Amino acid sequence: MYLEKIRRPDDLKALDISQLERLAEEVREEILRTVSHNGGHLASNLGVVELTIALLTSFSLPEDKILLDVGHQCYPFKLLTGRFERFSSLRTWEGLSGFPQPEESVYDTFTAGHASTAISAALGLCRARDLKGEKHHVAAVVGDGALTGGMCFEALNDAGSSREPMIVILNDNGMSISGNTGAVAEYLTYMRSSKGWLQLKKGVSSALLRVPKAGDRLYDRFGRFKDHIRNIFVRDTYFDSLGFRYFGPIDGHNISSLQRVLNRVKDMHEPVLIHVVTQKGRGYRPAEDQPDVFHGVPPFYVESGAARKTSGAEAFGETASRALLDALKKGVPVAAVCAAMTDGTGFSAWKTEAPDRLFDVGIAEEHAVTMAAGMARGGMRPAVAVYDTFLQRGYDQMMEDVCQQNLPVLFLMDRAGFSGADGATHHGIFGLSYLNTMPHMRVYCPASGDQLRSALRGALTQAGPAAVRYPRYIPRWPEETLELLTDAETWSCVREGTDACLLAMGAILEEALKAADILAQKGISCAVYACCRVKPLDEAALNSLFSSAAPVFTVEEHELSGGFGQAVTAYCQRAGLPAPAHIFAVPDRFVPHGDRTKLLALCGLSAGQMADRIGRIVQISGEKRS
Amino acid sequence: MYLEKIRRPDDLKALDISQLERLAEEVREEILRTVSHNGGHLASNLGVVELTIALLTSFSLPEDKILLDVGHQCYPFKLLTGRFERFSSLRTWEGLSGFPQPEESVYDTFTAGHASTAISAALGLCRARDLKGEKHHVAAVVGDGALTGGMCFEALNDAGSSREPMIVILNDNGMSISGNTGAVAEYLTYMRSSKGWLQLKKGVSSALLRVPKAGDRLYDRFGRFKDHIRNIFVRDTYFDSLGFRYFGPIDGHNISSLQRVLNRVKDMHEPVLIHVVTQKGRGYRPAEDQPDVFHGVPPFYVESGAARKTSGAEAFGETASRALLDALKKGVPVAAVCAAMTDGTGFSAWKTEAPDRLFDVGIAEEHAVTMAAGMARGGMRPAVAVYDTFLQRGYDQMMEDVCQQNLPVLFLMDRAGFSGADGATHHGIFGLSYLNTMPHMRVYCPASGDQLRSALRGALTQAGPAAVRYPRYIPRWPEETLELLTDAETWSCVREGTDACLLAMGAILEEALKAADILAQKGISCAVYACCRVKPLDEAALNSLFSSAAPVFTVEEHELSGGFGQAVTAYCQRAGLPAPAHIFAVPDRFVPHGDRTKLLALCGLSAGQMADRIGRIVQISGEKRS
Repeated sequence: MYLEKIRRPDDLKALDISQLERLAEEVREEILRTVSHNGGHLASNLGVVELTIALLTSFSLPEDKILLDVGHQCYPFKLLTGRFERFSSLRTWEGLSGFPQPEESVYDTFTAGHASTAISAALGLCRARDLKGEKHHVAAVVGDGALTGGMCFEALNDAGSSREPMIVILNDNGMSISGNTGAVAEYLTYMRSSKGWLQLKKGVSSALLRVPKAGDRLYDRFGRFKDHIRNIFVRDTYFDSLGFRYFGPIDGHNISSLQRVLNRVKDMHEPVLIHVVTQKGRGYRPAEDQPDVFHGVPPFYVESGAARKTSGAEAFGETASRALLDALKKGVPVAAVCAAMTDGTGFSAWKTEAPDRLFDVGIAEEHAVTMAAGMARGGMRPAVAVYDTFLQRGYDQMMEDVCQQNLPVLFLMDRAGFSGADGATHHGIFGLSYLNTMPHMRVYCPASGDQLRSALRGALTQAGPAAVRYPRYIPRWPEETLELLTDAETWSCVREGTDACLLAMGAILEEALKAADILAQKGISCAVYACCRVKPLDEAALNSLFSSAAPVFTVEEHELSGGFGQAVTAYCQRAGLPAPAHIFAVPDRFVPHGDRTKLLALCGLSAGQMADRIGRIVQISGEKRS
Repeated sequence: MYLEKIRRPDDLKALDISQLERLAEEVREEILRTVSHNGGHLASNLGVVELTIALLTSFSLPEDKILLDVGHQCYPFKLLTGRFERFSSLRTWEGLSGFPQPEESVYDTFTAGHASTAISAALGLCRARDLKGEKHHVAAVVGDGALTGGMCFEALNDAGSSREPMIVILNDNGMSISGNTGAVAEYLTYMRSSKGWLQLKKGVSSALLRVPKAGDRLYDRFGRFKDHIRNIFVRDTYFDSLGFRYFGPIDGHNISSLQRVLNRVKDMHEPVLIHVVTQKGRGYRPAEDQPDVFHGVPPFYVESGAARKTSGAEAFGETASRALLDALKKGVPVAAVCAAMTDGTGFSAWKTEAPDRLFDVGIAEEHAVTMAAGMARGGMRPAVAVYDTFLQRGYDQMMEDVCQQNLPVLFLMDRAGFSGADGATHHGIFGLSYLNTMPHMRVYCPASGDQLRSALRGALTQAGPAAVRYPRYIPRWPEETLELLTDAETWSCVREGTDACLLAMGAILEEALKAADILAQKGISCAVYACCRVKPLDEAALNSLFSSAAPVFTVEEHELSGGFGQAVTAYCQRAGLPAPAHIFAVPDRFVPHGDRTKLLALCGLSAGQMADRIGRIVQISGEKRS
């Protein structure tokens, strides 16, 4: 086995091509083994094994810098840069992160998690290099999906005109997460299918062998090389317009082809883009056949590809999707806008049931928001379904284009709360803070399917914008609780109590009820309220709750600053009511990856911790009163 | 005079070409007259007079929709769509807005203020039109500057592949605000200067006259037209790659050429881009000569172009720029990153004093932030100088790329607080709310030049990111106050007092001191603190202030939610201190344009209002104590 002997990238350089090809298979096996146990990103990682080997053998790390866009395709990179032994800890508490993490390794130059950032970061590294008089290479590996993000264009536009020597590797697997969209995707398809590429596939080895070696650094030598390679490659217009020298398409599973091109372009004194064609899921049949399904996966059986256990829980996203299709049937002019996450947000049904009303704009949240604002101005009621954390990209557009015009755009913010194994870049814990600053915006955090449907009815009948934030799955409630979780507009008392009152925003109600159970065992009777609509607050409920002598607490799986508890506090200040006795919320820190239970405890949000704190405060305030 | 007879766009259709050309001159005169009195955007508006006339005569408004990107070039549009009589109220309190405003007129389809949004909004309108089975035209007018924004690319990419019939008019004046940057700008320059265009300029009338009339709607007729026009126009590759049919370049000051092209492309069943070349400042020599200076102007004398009065006040931005140049001389590896606002942010000196360290990336805030993060990773200390409101575009990148990696990027957020005449889209009143949610971020709000320099010293010596927020001008302080405003890290008492204490964030200290003056006249002694570093808070100061019995108030020219007062409140809750008696902040509403004094009063932030409220509370708490 070669893999276990690779302690650092330089160790790869001792292997010949056939050994590297064997190594590639070992890397695939290791990824399959770990991801099938831990869950994670599979198809994209299987697709970049040879590319990663070619990069690590063509460059000299850590002096040279390789940046991985989005970052979820970093598993081969981690395995080959000294993290083989820790690899089984991938995405687990205190284990390896599923994304590049400079704190984890000197080979991880830049973290990622949100798409389309690598070219910008690479250009920054190049400029720092030049200003400091250093000499090293900087390469950014960008997927064709990420290329739909406007940031990539901004970076290409800047880099292309500044003539900064840098290498962009376009990893084209013809997919973002679920099928790719947009004119550039069509352009790439054309390039892949064009005559030059088909010829190249046949004749690549012999053609490349004729390319002169880059033994000396004379520019004219490279010039000749470029002319040569141009003739066998496809003629590009798009990247050329942006100031990049284009090479491609190259077979992304042929290590020696990749090495040859990389070794030759790396000393060119201009921005270069190498178009590499890879197959998502390569080497594992179920993933090759269904790359979208195997993009991000829960633990599964390698033999069949079947999930080890299905949660069976209902997803908020699919419930929302279904409710909107029902509204459509009743004549509400809804439409769905997705950003490369139609499946992830639960909107797959629209592909067959309302395809003319489903707009997947690619990884382009800014455009998604303002395009939806345009639809709303045109009389529609568009719903933008995006993960909470990715909607951060559309913050300015929500504020300026939607809220300022009070347009009826509905935001469905999925994966709110802790993301668990994906970690800091994926937790949905900042959304309410910016929503709370947006005039006209209504915000709902449902805890059940009925509350979600009620929230959607409220959102679809009001004049302006609304946002509905929810985690992936609907908690399973006992029947008696479920019956109380029906209305989205007013806060419902789901547990009576006299010594304290706990206001829970959305699905963390589950933890709040557990805390009340623990308190009950200590003889403290704690009321629990389900707070769905959090902007505007249920002021009637607040007026009545705070007029009782029992201390009031708030709980949210969300950042403290600008969140639910602070909004309650602000109302109390305005209304002359006493402030909450304590706000349970995520403190001012980034939260790592790991099991949600661990993350709640890290932030003082576990039922036990809350019960503890509430108990102490109830005791003190009881003593004061007596 | 024709202008005063134009009540609606259809009135224009009764005029012949020579009358329209006369009208264009009247429009220019009216714009010059008003802007020279009220201040506003000049050069861009003078450049689009003929284009606006051509649009309004070629389309049928309000059925057809015209969207103006950025929107500051809307003056001719407003003058010709029924707002001539109110035009002298432009940008004044309760007068016409300087940007498109649907509440103001049925002809204003979509508001704007931040760049690069119009193609997205137009595509949304097109999709709504199609889903509703309507037939009308949608055109987006986009500047070459706005085109550097990634949103435009996202929208072109989506529109180009969806084949949605829409018209994008690229208003190419070769500038954004100060000279244009990027590969696409170079591409446009090439197109403008290419042989085809030069020939066209000479032969345009005769060539266009030969184009067959679009009497019938048969596609092949347009097909023939396209082939024809292609031959006389320049061959495009860039927009073609994105799925747009390109026509151009067209002389943007020739009304009949523009009309002919618009009338012919408007019924093409595909996305079309018309490249129109205009001259910024057209018709007013000082603006033609210095279009950057006359982009946005204070009131000036038409004869000379000289400003009516110069404030003479020192700008925060220039002070920051100078301080960073000084740091550079001392060996700090600083660099400046601007987003098409090098002059506006006060960084012009870098063009001559440190040109290799000044990076103007164009209107591309997302890229600016992550590129700076890359520079910081490479060992530099980049400063990103952007207007507070425009940095909203970089929110996700600040959180994910800068703060998560704790990189030493410095954000200089200019025009914080009310923007005055520019209005709702330009007020810098949300910045602190998102900064407060960013772990590792330090935030300074200086009130004087010394405090700014102190803040920069603090920011440049710490390990992680920092943001410095300030309005345009440094308030003029009496000498004795100025001496107290030197340190950025600890809060300074600038006025002693015993009955109340007012904590003022940044430059609104001026209003706070006035409030204390008014209170003094009523016999109430109010201490005033200048609070510069607001994240983390000066906890020592808070501990000592809140231990006195006098009520504490906070004041900020900023949104309440997630702002300064709420941060103080959160600290008090944590530390077991009493909460502030009142938070003076901007409530949950959009604030219109107008004189800052008016805006402060609208939000309850005038010295009189604050004194009033503080007085009442002090009285009540005094009564309680006695």
